[in-house]
Amino acid sequence: MSEDDLVAFGETMLRLSPPGNERIESADEFEVRAGGAESNVAIAAQRLGLSATWLSKVPETPLGRRAVGELRKAGIETDVVWSHRGRQGTYYLERAGEPRGANVIYDRENTAVSTAKARELDLERIKSASVFFTTGITPALSSTLRDTTASLIKAAQTGGTTTAVDFNYRRKLWSPEEAKETMTHLFPGIDLLVIAARDARTVLGIEGDPRQLAHRLGSEYDLDTVVVTRGAEGAVGWHDGVVHEQPAYETDTVSKVGTGDAFTGAFIARRLDGDDVSTALEYAAATAALKRTIPGDIALVTEDEIEAVVREGGETLSR
Amino acid sequence: MSEDDLVAFGETMLRLSPPGNERIESADEFEVRAGGAESNVAIAAQRLGLSATWLSKVPETPLGRRAVGELRKAGIETDVVWSHRGRQGTYYLERAGEPRGANVIYDRENTAVSTAKARELDLERIKSASVFFTTGITPALSSTLRDTTASLIKAAQTGGTTTAVDFNYRRKLWSPEEAKETMTHLFPGIDLLVIAARDARTVLGIEGDPRQLAHRLGSEYDLDTVVVTRGAEGAVGWHDGVVHEQPAYETDTVSKVGTGDAFTGAFIARRLDGDDVSTALEYAAATAALKRTIPGDIALVTEDEIEAVVREGGETLSR
Amino acid sequence: MSEDDLVAFGETMLRLSPPGNERIESADEFEVRAGGAESNVAIAAQRLGLSATWLSKVPETPLGRRAVGELRKAGIETDVVWSHRGRQGTYYLERAGEPRGANVIYDRENTAVSTAKARELDLERIKSASVFFTTGITPALSSTLRDTTASLIKAAQTGGTTTAVDFNYRRKLWSPEEAKETMTHLFPGIDLLVIAARDARTVLGIEGDPRQLAHRLGSEYDLDTVVVTRGAEGAVGWHDGVVHEQPAYETDTVSKVGTGDAFTGAFIARRLDGDDVSTALEYAAATAALKRTIPGDIALVTEDEIEAVVREGGETLSR
Amino acid sequence: MSEDDLVAFGETMLRLSPPGNERIESADEFEVRAGGAESNVAIAAQRLGLSATWLSKVPETPLGRRAVGELRKAGIETDVVWSHRGRQGTYYLERAGEPRGANVIYDRENTAVSTAKARELDLERIKSASVFFTTGITPALSSTLRDTTASLIKAAQTGGTTTAVDFNYRRKLWSPEEAKETMTHLFPGIDLLVIAARDARTVLGIEGDPRQLAHRLGSEYDLDTVVVTRGAEGAVGWHDGVVHEQPAYETDTVSKVGTGDAFTGAFIARRLDGDDVSTALEYAAATAALKRTIPGDIALVTEDEIEAVVREGGETLSR
Amino acid sequence: MSEDDLVAFGETMLRLSPPGNERIESADEFEVRAGGAESNVAIAAQRLGLSATWLSKVPETPLGRRAVGELRKAGIETDVVWSHRGRQGTYYLERAGEPRGANVIYDRENTAVSTAKARELDLERIKSASVFFTTGITPALSSTLRDTTASLIKAAQTGGTTTAVDFNYRRKLWSPEEAKETMTHLFPGIDLLVIAARDARTVLGIEGDPRQLAHRLGSEYDLDTVVVTRGAEGAVGWHDGVVHEQPAYETDTVSKVGTGDAFTGAFIARRLDGDDVSTALEYAAATAALKRTIPGDIALVTEDEIEAVVREGGETLSR
Amino acid sequence: MSEDDLVAFGETMLRLSPPGNERIESADEFEVRAGGAESNVAIAAQRLGLSATWLSKVPETPLGRRAVGELRKAGIETDVVWSHRGRQGTYYLERAGEPRGANVIYDRENTAVSTAKARELDLERIKSASVFFTTGITPALSSTLRDTTASLIKAAQTGGTTTAVDFNYRRKLWSPEEAKETMTHLFPGIDLLVIAARDARTVLGIEGDPRQLAHRLGSEYDLDTVVVTRGAEGAVGWHDGVVHEQPAYETDTVSKVGTGDAFTGAFIARRLDGDDVSTALEYAAATAALKRTIPGDIALVTEDEIEAVVREGGETLSR
Repeated sequence: MSEDDLVAFGETMLRLSPPGNERIESADEFEVRAGGAESNVAIAAQRLGLSATWLSKVPETPLGRRAVGELRKAGIETDVVWSHRGRQGTYYLERAGEPRGANVIYDRENTAVSTAKARELDLERIKSASVFFTTGITPALSSTLRDTTASLIKAAQTGGTTTAVDFNYRRKLWSPEEAKETMTHLFPGIDLLVIAARDARTVLGIEGDPRQLAHRLGSEYDLDTVVVTRGAEGAVGWHDGVVHEQPAYETDTVSKVGTGDAFTGAFIARRLDGDDVSTALEYAAATAALKRTIPGDIALVTEDEIEAVVREGGETLSR
Repeated sequence: MSEDDLVAFGETMLRLSPPGNERIESADEFEVRAGGAESNVAIAAQRLGLSATWLSKVPETPLGRRAVGELRKAGIETDVVWSHRGRQGTYYLERAGEPRGANVIYDRENTAVSTAKARELDLERIKSASVFFTTGITPALSSTLRDTTASLIKAAQTGGTTTAVDFNYRRKLWSPEEAKETMTHLFPGIDLLVIAARDARTVLGIEGDPRQLAHRLGSEYDLDTVVVTRGAEGAVGWHDGVVHEQPAYETDTVSKVGTGDAFTGAFIARRLDGDDVSTALEYAAATAALKRTIPGDIALVTEDEIEAVVREGGETLSR
Repeated sequence: MSEDDLVAFGETMLRLSPPGNERIESADEFEVRAGGAESNVAIAAQRLGLSATWLSKVPETPLGRRAVGELRKAGIETDVVWSHRGRQGTYYLERAGEPRGANVIYDRENTAVSTAKARELDLERIKSASVFFTTGITPALSSTLRDTTASLIKAAQTGGTTTAVDFNYRRKLWSPEEAKETMTHLFPGIDLLVIAARDARTVLGIEGDPRQLAHRLGSEYDLDTVVVTRGAEGAVGWHDGVVHEQPAYETDTVSKVGTGDAFTGAFIARRLDGDDVSTALEYAAATAALKRTIPGDIALVTEDEIEAVVREGGETLSR
Repeated sequence: MSEDDLVAFGETMLRLSPPGNERIESADEFEVRAGGAESNVAIAAQRLGLSATWLSKVPETPLGRRAVGELRKAGIETDVVWSHRGRQGTYYLERAGEPRGANVIYDRENTAVSTAKARELDLERIKSASVFFTTGITPALSSTLRDTTASLIKAAQTGGTTTAVDFNYRRKLWSPEEAKETMTHLFPGIDLLVIAARDARTVLGIEGDPRQLAHRLGSEYDLDTVVVTRGAEGAVGWHDGVVHEQPAYETDTVSKVGTGDAFTGAFIARRLDGDDVSTALEYAAATAALKRTIPGDIALVTEDEIEAVVREGGETLSR
Repeated sequence: MSEDDLVAFGETMLRLSPPGNERIESADEFEVRAGGAESNVAIAAQRLGLSATWLSKVPETPLGRRAVGELRKAGIETDVVWSHRGRQGTYYLERAGEPRGANVIYDRENTAVSTAKARELDLERIKSASVFFTTGITPALSSTLRDTTASLIKAAQTGGTTTAVDFNYRRKLWSPEEAKETMTHLFPGIDLLVIAARDARTVLGIEGDPRQLAHRLGSEYDLDTVVVTRGAEGAVGWHDGVVHEQPAYETDTVSKVGTGDAFTGAFIARRLDGDDVSTALEYAAATAALKRTIPGDIALVTEDEIEAVVREGGETLSR
Repeated sequence: MSEDDLVAFGETMLRLSPPGNERIESADEFEVRAGGAESNVAIAAQRLGLSATWLSKVPETPLGRRAVGELRKAGIETDVVWSHRGRQGTYYLERAGEPRGANVIYDRENTAVSTAKARELDLERIKSASVFFTTGITPALSSTLRDTTASLIKAAQTGGTTTAVDFNYRRKLWSPEEAKETMTHLFPGIDLLVIAARDARTVLGIEGDPRQLAHRLGSEYDLDTVVVTRGAEGAVGWHDGVVHEQPAYETDTVSKVGTGDAFTGAFIARRLDGDDVSTALEYAAATAALKRTIPGDIALVTEDEIEAVVREGGETLSR
């Protein structure tokens, strides 16, 4: 078996959305796409040159195959337990500008992945990888997945695999209290934590500006690296006690969904490639900016495009 | 409150299907339509002149509103308990010719309607209607709905409302044994039973050709009227000990789904209008034939079109 | 018959528009939607909790059924005289940014509704409603409708029904002089007048800033309430000699068409609900803002969304 | 001015049709195409090598330009009086298999073309052409067009231009009696008459099988050439007292509309090219067969394709 | 490196086709799909359980990535030399019923793959696989590919890998004489030859009925196994001097393209699985039949579906 | 033969682009449009009232007919050598906002037009026209076209036809050095030169602000008129030693492609109509602004719309 640079574990949903800014209540068609934080990260990392594999449990149905196929098309490997029980998770996205704002309706209960046990998954693959990645969404999906997430992180540690987690608090899945308790139990096994400033404050109850948040998170939880994200205001990276600030690029945004995942995937890829935190943040911001010009959750970008953004902030019509 | 000619109770799902004969596993868009046996019947009946209302429990979400909106667009009234719990049922339809055959994937567990109790619904509306209609799908959806179905039929009887039920056995929902036990308990409260010959044989264990099936069902269960349907081979109606045969019309079929519902809705409408069984069967067959020329589950037909089929078997390009 | 909160009378057209910003002259498909000022207002009012019915005369054709079906789908009741004579009105909308600007091509001559006489319509429904609504478009469509509009307003007065009219001057339908003469004859029967500042100036010849316009209109024509609208600059409400100003919300505009109708429908609904003019204007502005994020003429909004805008100016991606 | 082989005069409508077999009453989009018997004929003739020009009067609107553009795209010249009055004719086509049958809803009253007077049109162009073509639809559209049609036929005669007319009776436009009176007045100026057997019987009251119909029409009205068409049963041509029969080719029909026009255009083209009636009928049948495989009203065929059908009845997948 | 069951080498094109039966000359959109005989075969084989990899040389452009992504989505591995020179091959498909017939326009000159040399490709992968597959299309694309094909077959032989070739004569690529000379030079290295009866006759000049063709080909060229295909009339398999006949299943055909590839892929998969020729032919015919119900070139089928066809000839609507 | 106001010579490509901002690598459909600098200019000029003809050599295939048909639909005449050799040029356009930027992938090698020799083309048509137009793209396509371009310019001079050339440097086609050498050899035959400031600097090596560039180009190369364009910053016109500046209009841009061509076409049309340089530049800027509101390469505008922009900078929703 080839050793992966990155193994990610989590749920990928089918995303159903009316065209343009149509409302679901009057829609006569839905666009179908796949998206999930962990596979989004894996794809972004693969686009920057990593070999990446997504682990999951998926129903053996056309809907499950549809989700997996799109990940493969995007370029990553998939290592999937095909299940005869459990649904394929879906979510409905209604796009809208202000003051309406986009709306997400989750329909992800009783999914196949929510029953995934560590013993069903290829732990050796995780142990032999360079990085294992998951998010705070995974343990929020079921108590089974809470255990599984902990076991996978433990397996990674056993194998000497770096562990990276995006905190990704979802208020439609659990309360801040539940999230805090579960996630802080996982922190001792985590090397790299990515977290939104908002989540650090409202879920973990940490105060301060983003630089302070990063520093306090890193110190308090004894993490190797912390990245605090602030959306359009950029991100802050903390490592070895040093804080780096990275502004966000201006973009003609087509779709915000997946921006953070593109950021995280690129950051991991460049770090694994040997970049320092500051350079990795720059590539992460460029990848995130490109993602925003692309419909769907997935960062279908190329290294050349990322390099061009880092170099010159993108270019105009090329012919 | 205006009195309805027909009140129907049941679930209406959103139907998601790839365009044309595309496979779900490679689909990039789904057509969105609404469909459910009971609302299909109500709409067909309304198209033939009845005032018809669909009772149900629906999630207070854009998906729920989407389903209800399509029924209202088609012309019927909707009297809905809006729920903050429970999903909107969906089903995925993959169209295909032979030898592949169309495939239906239900995603209808834990729906709002599956929790509907009789006391939430407008029983007075049922009692004051001329006909109450439901199908064998409803009690198959949950044990709550088993009780609710029985209660609604009882309410109808109390009010002197004629009760009509389409047996509609769905093997993806329950076993023949479960279906037989539940449905035969309901039979004493049913005036009109519509049943596929195949279901009469494999679920109820009744033998014979369709004429015999109709006769035996009517006699054994003391029903007022029995219609045994045979798809492309037509139908048989039994009433007062007399059997009437009705062949099916030839059609250029675009969509089979909903054919039986169109048939049943038209039969009920014409019977209520005073037609004898034989004439009602003729209109039912014509309505079913027109339905097959129309995409989706719903019989968007007009009385003029039905009359034209009965009169002359349809017409060619009219300009 | 149930008593309606709002009864609206007018024409609803089919709206045909090329996708995106395509030109009609090169279009290979048209989106089909329904829209008409009066039904738009009725739907907005229904969305805020009123029971609302649209009265009209519509051709008994698939085109007529198409228009009526969309109104029913949006949630209102329709009470329609089905006609065997007269066309279904259509309009072609070509969307475009500056400096081209959107273009509307009316094809609404010789329609069924243009022949509607008061005696064909359900005057009792108007008399028993709380509010009767129409616009200055209706009497512009034919001399028959000029008489009918006057009769309906008179019927409303007879029944003690509040009368509300949106002035809505359309220069492609009649001259300012014709409009002024007809509309000022109707004013004595009108309780609530909504009018664009521009129309007050160019059609009625009233001078001043919007506050002055509202005051002068209210005084001169002895109206109960006057709302003067100014598009992106907000609106002014006058009642009992007091003037209230309401700014417009900032929006990511997808479609301007129907903004004023959403405003008016919400204003009527909140007034009927007991809000003072100032609060009603706030909800009206919020509903108008939401409408601008939605394609088509119709404000497919929910009360929750309107409340959210009033409370916080909308929210961002919610998941 | 270059001399045309064929000049055709008539109305071209925009054709709006829901996709597939959808019903208009539930359609959310219409395909937009152009079609008119006379321009259809001109295009078919052009496809077989003639230079062809379509004369008409068209509104100076995007809708008018849309119609004309499609004719130009198909390859013919257009010589149009651009009008500031009068509508663009449209028709709505609802496709359907049996027993529903396709339905056409005309919306072609008060069009620009219905006001076209002979003096507005380029009579010299007609006089210098080889063939002038129109149909029985044109004089059915208005009394003005009745006169105009007569004048154009007269002009053609004056110029020594062959006159060809497709009888094309449309019952939604006029009664058989009106049609008979108008058309028989035109017959003395007509060289080539194409007529459906059904029209010959029900409008002109001529009896007999198609051979007899052709012979009687030719003799009674002193025509040079008569073609009697019978749809799927082929056609009969009469010239110089001799009758030729031509069967129709079997086809996988996608759209019947325009079949007859393709037939007529090809017949005229081949006759002008010097073919005898029998050969011209064969090419006409082949062109008609190809048309039926093509969506829309217009025969977008090539000479190579027609030759292939004549030679071998078409071919299978070519790669 | 994992050992593959099947390694295929060849070109995969982007296929551009107007929707439905539209003509290219009036098309405003093209559907985009990927297709190539060798990857089609690999996918069909993978669908029956083989691990399959497609080898090729592809331009490093969005078009190249588009083609490769679709193959990965369908489930196979891709092992691609990314090239900075050479085009991505495309073909335009115009679908049509009789008598028009579908038309393919190749635009596949100067492609990246046409420059692929054996030394660029992973010969070890071929040597360690169970089966190596290519078609007669590959050597027809360039003289470079003629050499490369010979080298790859030789490499396979060296590794003890079974070699399978579909003759697939394309008259738009080379003459019968060229094809015969090139292909018969390759025959000594081929174990399994699949060939259309028509190609055996017109290119190789062998006479007889399909049984005789299979026998003569097998004997004359000393092949291990020969399959002679006859489209709708089924196929004949020859092995060890014994001939097996297999009829084709009846189908509701949506797309013929790729039928033969589905057949060949399934045949190889079942043979490798240990089936005798007769059983393998049965599964091949079932897979081919299912393919015909699916749009595009690729057989997106499941083993369950294939089993169902073999068992019962498919099933009807399942719910 | 009628004399043309404008004859343009060059290549028109089919343009294939994914919908919206989709990436080519994940696209399942391409929009199909035609575009080429010379035909774009001819159409813009025709829209302002010129009679315009596009000369070219096009493959006798559905793809070639598709391209030509769209030009005819837009209103110009086409005078085409139909070729049995050579491809139809295509280009793939991937739209994107910043920082990604739109991307053009040319697939235009070995086209039919690249083999066009002067003797194949209608030189008399050029000689009798008022203006002959081509661009710097044409000689960049092949050495044959380099000669042909020179010959056509010479023919124009012989006939006393004004010659106009847009420099249009394309770095994906040739190097600055090649472009400079070829183009400066053509300059002595050119009356009107349109050139981007950027091209003047990087290809021709001329320094200075746009006013200086215009002046130096005009003087150095002895041109009659020079227009230096600067995109969003407007343009500068030089004639008779006098320089005129023209700012660009603000626009809601839908598509930039073709903006310069619309500008140039309008400038030529107004100059030919007798406008002075300054007025012609104003109309050119207005036409360019309108183009940017229209999808595709072609300026489907009307004179009324251009006049409105010149007069008032466009207008808002008109109904």
